[in-house]
Amino acid sequence: MQFTAKDIAFMLNGTVEGDPLVAVNHLAKIEEGGAGSLSFLANPKYEQYLYTTDASVVIVNNSQELTAPVNTTLIRVDNAYGAFTLLLEKYNTIKLNKSGIEQPSFIHTSAKVGTEPYIGAFTYISQDVVLGDNCKLYPGCYIADNVTLGNNVTLFPGVKVYFDCVIGNNVVIHSGAVIGSDGFGFAPNADGTYTKIAQIGNVVIEDNVEVGANTTIDRATMGSTIIRKGVKLDNLVQIAHNVELGQNTVVAAQSGIAGSTKLAENVILGGQVGIVGHINVAKGTQVQAQSGISRTITEEGKKWAGTPAIAYANNMRSNVVVSRLPELEKRVNELEKIITELKKKGD
Amino acid sequence: MQFTAKDIAFMLNGTVEGDPLVAVNHLAKIEEGGAGSLSFLANPKYEQYLYTTDASVVIVNNSQELTAPVNTTLIRVDNAYGAFTLLLEKYNTIKLNKSGIEQPSFIHTSAKVGTEPYIGAFTYISQDVVLGDNCKLYPGCYIADNVTLGNNVTLFPGVKVYFDCVIGNNVVIHSGAVIGSDGFGFAPNADGTYTKIAQIGNVVIEDNVEVGANTTIDRATMGSTIIRKGVKLDNLVQIAHNVELGQNTVVAAQSGIAGSTKLAENVILGGQVGIVGHINVAKGTQVQAQSGISRTITEEGKKWAGTPAIAYANNMRSNVVVSRLPELEKRVNELEKIITELKKKGD
Amino acid sequence: MQFTAKDIAFMLNGTVEGDPLVAVNHLAKIEEGGAGSLSFLANPKYEQYLYTTDASVVIVNNSQELTAPVNTTLIRVDNAYGAFTLLLEKYNTIKLNKSGIEQPSFIHTSAKVGTEPYIGAFTYISQDVVLGDNCKLYPGCYIADNVTLGNNVTLFPGVKVYFDCVIGNNVVIHSGAVIGSDGFGFAPNADGTYTKIAQIGNVVIEDNVEVGANTTIDRATMGSTIIRKGVKLDNLVQIAHNVELGQNTVVAAQSGIAGSTKLAENVILGGQVGIVGHINVAKGTQVQAQSGISRTITEEGKKWAGTPAIAYANNMRSNVVVSRLPELEKRVNELEKIITELKKKGD
Repeated sequence: MQFTAKDIAFMLNGTVEGDPLVAVNHLAKIEEGGAGSLSFLANPKYEQYLYTTDASVVIVNNSQELTAPVNTTLIRVDNAYGAFTLLLEKYNTIKLNKSGIEQPSFIHTSAKVGTEPYIGAFTYISQDVVLGDNCKLYPGCYIADNVTLGNNVTLFPGVKVYFDCVIGNNVVIHSGAVIGSDGFGFAPNADGTYTKIAQIGNVVIEDNVEVGANTTIDRATMGSTIIRKGVKLDNLVQIAHNVELGQNTVVAAQSGIAGSTKLAENVILGGQVGIVGHINVAKGTQVQAQSGISRTITEEGKKWAGTPAIAYANNMRSNVVVSRLPELEKRVNELEKIITELKKKGD
Repeated sequence: MQFTAKDIAFMLNGTVEGDPLVAVNHLAKIEEGGAGSLSFLANPKYEQYLYTTDASVVIVNNSQELTAPVNTTLIRVDNAYGAFTLLLEKYNTIKLNKSGIEQPSFIHTSAKVGTEPYIGAFTYISQDVVLGDNCKLYPGCYIADNVTLGNNVTLFPGVKVYFDCVIGNNVVIHSGAVIGSDGFGFAPNADGTYTKIAQIGNVVIEDNVEVGANTTIDRATMGSTIIRKGVKLDNLVQIAHNVELGQNTVVAAQSGIAGSTKLAENVILGGQVGIVGHINVAKGTQVQAQSGISRTITEEGKKWAGTPAIAYANNMRSNVVVSRLPELEKRVNELEKIITELKKKGD
Repeated sequence: MQFTAKDIAFMLNGTVEGDPLVAVNHLAKIEEGGAGSLSFLANPKYEQYLYTTDASVVIVNNSQELTAPVNTTLIRVDNAYGAFTLLLEKYNTIKLNKSGIEQPSFIHTSAKVGTEPYIGAFTYISQDVVLGDNCKLYPGCYIADNVTLGNNVTLFPGVKVYFDCVIGNNVVIHSGAVIGSDGFGFAPNADGTYTKIAQIGNVVIEDNVEVGANTTIDRATMGSTIIRKGVKLDNLVQIAHNVELGQNTVVAAQSGIAGSTKLAENVILGGQVGIVGHINVAKGTQVQAQSGISRTITEEGKKWAGTPAIAYANNMRSNVVVSRLPELEKRVNELEKIITELKKKGD
């Protein structure tokens, strides 16, 4: 793919300053751009690079003033950041523009496939599955019996969806993610063994959710594990049975949420956070990476840190003291000695 | 699938109170049940719902007394919880009742497949593999050379088993789990590089083990990584080379056990626990979520928490003080000031 | 596979003491060896086993003196450990000696495959992919458009590589690893929803890297996520977008590194470590398991521990005090009481 400055200015409704015929074939940061790169400048912090960049073309705001000559061709637009984001998106759309049904794939005769599908080779679509329109299932995916997918769903290679799960519109699931595996439910017996409790619920993923690579979301024991609209899960996240994640909640990599816990909307979890089972977490709660939430949080919009988590600011202060605990203990030892002497004198 | 109250009472050897012809087609909690739901009441805590539920049928204990009229049809049995668990299991058995060998699959001519198999499309069974009877290998599984599976083994889609591993009877492994990948063994060289130490051992999984989605169990350097009878591993768990897990040990999600460590039987690990390599953990040990075990535990049946882990009760008490450490430090500052003054006076 | 002591002595350029015709068919530790085992003795700590082992053959150093009769056949060599390691490697090479292109597999007509390939069934090689010589792609792998692999690359079953990624020579990637999934980048909107930021960069993996099972390495937003020569990643590790790992850096299982962070060469991370985004970590840094690195480390070759991490030795000392914090607090309480009394007296 190769475009001229003029082509790109046309796409973005911008104006060219410099050589309209210079060609670009990839996108790069302004500080890393070379010949053939298309970059942008939006943050004034990076303005210095405008005069030194080797990028062939740089998109800038109409308001951008020049304080020295530039060696690159400029494209001026109203909103340089927005224009560049749009190009990123278009670029990606082209990259992911697969279509058709490849062979060998396995599509059960009872399955319903919407319009404009992409079904990669070695993908398996089981009995009574319903796929909406414009679904892209990359190679090696597995969709079990009775699963429903909405429109514009993208499953990257090797996604597995167990039976009865329901996935909404515009959902993106990355490679190796597992949706609907059995919840971890075992009843202890008197002899120390465990009896499995059958997990017959499902997972419901609402619209506009993104699920990271190798993330696991367990089916409910009964009822549904629910991932509400707009939730974003990073890689290697664990969502246990009967959990509910509120709208637009964001969970960073390697965090885990134990069974039946409910997070309200717009919660943000850092990486490697753990949340115990059977609690509620209030709207807008933010949890520092590696923290552990061990009880229900009812107050909205607060930041937490530590294991077990306490208010973020308190945790910061406590951490400082933890690092000088040996010294603090010595000071207490010293005080005790002095006191003992003072008491002797006082006697 | 649809059954009448009468059908179900017959299956459970119970008696119907209400409409014997009312039909149900799914299982639900009593507080969530609607038309067509079959629920149960065992825990007196939920008794209130018996009078308000919309479930079409509720299974109750023979001993259950009614203090108000009910709108639902009852099935009376000796043990409502046990009867319901039985139905869950039957439901699941029907859901997972796949059989036959789908095409395209890859079965090496030297492999031996037991009676009543299910081998899904895109599953690969390599040289000299032996599968017991009634094994279900869902689509996209990979079984390497010389692997042996017992009877009644279920591998969900995309399970990978490396060469020479041995899996017992009644084992269930969820999607994306990897059994027998190389242990993490590298010898440092003088120039800062590392030389790989070949990992030629295997993994042995005994009977009645369940392994969660995307969990990884590494092969031994030499000898075997051993998962004893009845062990239950949750999702995204890491078991390193030469680890041994004792009978009926339970490991919650995202925990990791480093190389050559041996856990005795009936150990319970919470989520995100880490255990260092080359130690032993005594029978019945319980470890709080997110804790780190850094040395051998010889005393049986104790609870541990924290990183590094200390006795659970001590950890709880220390956590409380950690949260008021800044205050404690101020109190020591204050004491030092007072003491200095007292000493002056005393001089 | 079966060899006589004489065969093995010939391979290792050693001399036989005992029965040259005794046959061995597997490798074992000296303390676990039985009939048919080949073992070695290098560490004097294990010398006792030389006189009691049931291994059929034991490789020993030429310098090894015998203080009692042995029941096993010895092979004497210059360096017993080195000789055994060589055998381990040879053994593994034989185990992994797959070749040819199995059917059904999917190889796009535009893809270039080097000499001596192994391409397992159900593996998918997309448009414009270039594979070097002697690449082994086990069954169920997925290689997206424009991916380049060097020579002698081994991808175990079910590895997924997204488009545009570049993988060097002698790279080994274990089952279920995902290379090049989207970085976790979302811009918050005023209404609480998030807009995805397209991730158009790639992942570059240099020579001699090993990647563990189910590990995930995200593509850069722009530019490259870079894994330098000789890096070793264990299982279930998370590498976020635009991270750079320096040469010969080693990361143990379940650790995670957040976006844009750069680790210098020869860094060692224990298991379950977390490192925040946008920082640098100096050469030779070592981080204790379960620790959290929250700020740039500029001093080389130091050990760190704790969350947030402090110098290793300080963390060890602080941990000891943490475990007796309740006692420390009581001592401060007691001091305050005494001081109050002393002050009264002094008045």
